[in-house]
This record gives sequence, C-alpha cells and structure tokens, in this order.
Amino acid sequence: MNIYVIGVGLIGGSIALDAKDLNPDAKIFGIDSNEKHLQEAKKLGVIDEAATFEDLSKADFVIVSVPVDTAIVVLPTVLDLISDSAIVFDVGSTKAPICEAVAGHPKRRNFIATHPIAGTEFSGPSAAIRGLFQGKTNIICEVEKTTFKLQEKALDLFKNIGMRIRYMDPKSHDKHIAYVSHLSHISSFMLGKTVINKEKDEQDIFDMAGSGFESTVRLAKSSPAMWTPIFKQNKKQVIKTLEEYISNLSKFKELMLNDDYDAIYHEMESVNRIKEILNGMNAKK
Amino acid sequence: MNIYVIGVGLIGGSIALDAKDLNPDAKIFGIDSNEKHLQEAKKLGVIDEAATFEDLSKADFVIVSVPVDTAIVVLPTVLDLISDSAIVFDVGSTKAPICEAVAGHPKRRNFIATHPIAGTEFSGPSAAIRGLFQGKTNIICEVEKTTFKLQEKALDLFKNIGMRIRYMDPKSHDKHIAYVSHLSHISSFMLGKTVINKEKDEQDIFDMAGSGFESTVRLAKSSPAMWTPIFKQNKKQVIKTLEEYISNLSKFKELMLNDDYDAIYHEMESVNRIKEILNGMNAKK
Repeated sequence: MNIYVIGVGLIGGSIALDAKDLNPDAKIFGIDSNEKHLQEAKKLGVIDEAATFEDLSKADFVIVSVPVDTAIVVLPTVLDLISDSAIVFDVGSTKAPICEAVAGHPKRRNFIATHPIAGTEFSGPSAAIRGLFQGKTNIICEVEKTTFKLQEKALDLFKNIGMRIRYMDPKSHDKHIAYVSHLSHISSFMLGKTVINKEKDEQDIFDMAGSGFESTVRLAKSSPAMWTPIFKQNKKQVIKTLEEYISNLSKFKELMLNDDYDAIYHEMESVNRIKEILNGMNAKK
Repeated sequence: MNIYVIGVGLIGGSIALDAKDLNPDAKIFGIDSNEKHLQEAKKLGVIDEAATFEDLSKADFVIVSVPVDTAIVVLPTVLDLISDSAIVFDVGSTKAPICEAVAGHPKRRNFIATHPIAGTEFSGPSAAIRGLFQGKTNIICEVEKTTFKLQEKALDLFKNIGMRIRYMDPKSHDKHIAYVSHLSHISSFMLGKTVINKEKDEQDIFDMAGSGFESTVRLAKSSPAMWTPIFKQNKKQVIKTLEEYISNLSKFKELMLNDDYDAIYHEMESVNRIKEILNGMNAKK
C-alpha cells in the first residue's frame, strides 16, 4: 500500500505515523513545497521517502494536509493525477470552499472531505505525534458524493487511528466550527496582543502570569500560515462570531461601568455550565 | 504552632495541607461562614478543627483566604483579635483596596499583603491540593509595613511551600494583574457565553469542540463569588484592559472586512512570540 502525504506537518505527519504503525508494510511518501520539512520528516521517520506529484498515479491513499488556500488549488490537480482506485482526503478547518473546489471534478467520487478535530499549537514535521487522533472527532462532509468502496477504505483508517465519525453538510460545519474553533483562536491571539502591547517589560508578564493566562493564550502560538487562509475562507461566519463576542464583551464592560455587579455575577454563573458541557465532551473521548 | 485558615477553599485549604506537611506538630484551625465547607474540610483532613473568631488570640498564623470583598471587612477584625506575635496574611487577587483597608490599623505591622499566583478553576475544600504553590510566584506588597520578624516567619512559610517571592507596590500589582489574569477570565467567560448562546443544541459543541476550545474556556468554570468582587475592586484597571482588548478585536474584524489578510497574518505572527514568553515563564518554574 502506497500512502502519499501532501504537507508533512502536524496533521499529515501524525496521520502518517499512525498509518505506518497500523500497516507496517505500507510505504509512506511525502510531498512538500518545503524541502527542509521533507528532509526533516524523513529523518524523523514520519515518511519513508520524498516524492513528487508525478508519482501520485501509484497512490492508494492521498492525504492533503496543507493550508486551506493551498488545498483548494492542489486538490483538483491531485484528482487529475490519481488512479481510479485511489482515495484522496483533505483535513482542512473549512469545508464549503474545499467541497466547491472539487464539485465538478470527474474524479469527485475519489475524494472525501474530512476535518479531524485534533491538533496542538505546534506545527511542522517535528510536531507530528503518534496517537493524536485517539478519541477525537472526524467530521465528514458530503459523504454520499464518495464511491462507497472508497468511503469504507477511508473510514477504516479513521476508525483504526481512533476517531469517532460525525457527518455534516459543509455549510453547517463552517458555521459551527467558527464558534468552537475559529473564534477561540482570535480571542487568544488578541488577548496575547493586548498583554504584549501593554507589558513592554516582559519580565512583568513572566512573574505575574499564572496557568490561567497560559491556558487562554495557548492558541496564540498557532501558525499564521495555517490560520490566515482559514479566516479568509470562512470570512462571513468568523465575522459574525467575532461581532457576537465583541458585543458580549461590550455588554460586560457596560455592566461594570454601571456597577451592576449582581448582573455580572449572574452572567458568570450562567456560563459556569460550560463545566458540564466540557465534562460531557471528555466523557465521550 | 496554631495556624488559623479563614476560608477553607482552594487556596486556604491548599496552604493548610502544605503547612501541615511541613509542621506535623502544628494544629490547623478552620473558620468559615459555610458550615458544610468546614465539616468537609475536617473530613478531608484539610483542617484539624473548626474554630471561631474568638479563638484567634491563640493564633500564630492567620491566613485570610476569602473573596476580596469579605477580606476588606474581615481583616481589621482579625487584627483586632490577634496577639502581638501573630502574623496575618491575605491571598487576594487585588492588593490596593486590601492594603487600604488595614492602612491605619494599630496592628498593621502584624499583616503582610500577598497574592500567590496559583490556583485552578475549581473551588471549595475539595479543590485543595498538596503542592499547588510549588514553583509559583507570590507577590508581596508593602513589605516594609510588616514587622521584620513577622515578615521572616511568613516568607519562610512561602519559601518552604515552594514559592518564588516578588515585591511590588499595590497599585502596580493591580494594574499588571488586570492584564495577565483578570482580562483572561473575562475573555474566557464571554467566549463561553458566545458559544453557549449560539449553540442551543449542546451536542454540536460536544462533537466539534477540540482541545483548543477547552483551553480557552477553562477559566469560565471559575467561581462567580470569587471573581465578582475582584472585578468590582479593580474596576478601573479591568475596564481599561477590556477596552484595549475590545479595540484589538474590533481592529481584527476591520482587517477581515477589508480583506486585508496580509495584515492579519502579520498580526498573528507578531503575537506568536508569546511562545518565548510562555517558555520563559515555564523555564523559571
């Protein structure tokens, strides 16, 4: 079995590691525009060999794990090059633009649109880790547009690396994910910005910041190369969530200006049920 | 040695556990307006015995670990009741109002104002854990206003439970802490609110939220009873940080509306150095 990973970073590399463990006889090929990443991935054992697009005709699996703006360009080309029996999937955090990019392609049925909700704030081949997907959710869009046999092949891989499968239409995916992922990243980046701008003397941050600050700004370590195109492709939904977030923050500020601390107490108390929501999340993992 | 803990919750309880380990002969007394918490703390071994304010004359150490609005009321009373050789400290997240509350007290020199930057999002006696303060920072304000011998007694305890000491004036403390702690809590609470309000069907959150969301909303589990008075006492500084945060979020939204994705990339890239800041933080721990 030949597995091609286009983009040997955190997600592509982690799938490669798990796929190799599951199929020791499989050969993992890496394709990446960054030659240094390719060499690093080979050295780390994330891939067996570097390859090029011309080799894709030999692929059984193609995993497209590149920033979402690159994905919409690369995917039609990949579909042009593969054999009839190959299955291609992407892992991007936006689904509508990606599904649109391949909608009319003659090999559309060889593609399955996926979003594994997994990751860390790190990037590149050295960020790839075994078991990243264990207990995580993989959201699959437009499953009915993929050949049944190839669906099965992809789903087997996802299940074997430990993922729960959820089906969703691309627009619903993009709408919900703006709330539970894209907005978190912006809130974290802007929190980091606010503090860095103020605290020119970083020593003050070092000394006074605790684990709470660390937790809320963790996502501000994320890759701008990955996130800029996500915000661009999901512009409408992201702006909507951002407006609601800003409005809630402004209302909180108004309550403080009006010394309405009873209302502030109740605001916080009603959000406290995020505890049960998060516990429910973890219970399922 | 008699140690009195007023407020047997996360912080007071955790200090009690470490103090007892360090001084097995010490007797730990608990005072709390919540009778259930007192019983629970005794059952859990967080305190040896329940006590009342009348007993404070026998205290060597008094730890006031109650919400900051209660602290400013309780502290002068505690100082009225203690002996000349007792040392009293608070652990609140605001320092100027607390220092003001005891400024003119005849026993001011028996008090030391502290803020251990440690905690979790949980509260109550069952949240108390051993080793919570290991490698954490304790910010001490107006140290010169405490009798030298009693300073030493308190500092020995802080060092023995593993804390680094930093000295700061109360106003600077309240200004900086608004950025690195109070703002994080509001950003987290309002993020939780925005998502909960939108996602009435919680199942969608369960299924799509990943570890990133979990990290950014963790602080939204915090206790409203603890945080409301903090925001009230640090109103001016908190509103200032909140305004700057809202302004940064609004600018980000404007960049998105103008499709200025180059600027968005650079915004995120420049905040990425939070990585080194956080690494510096952890290296010191």
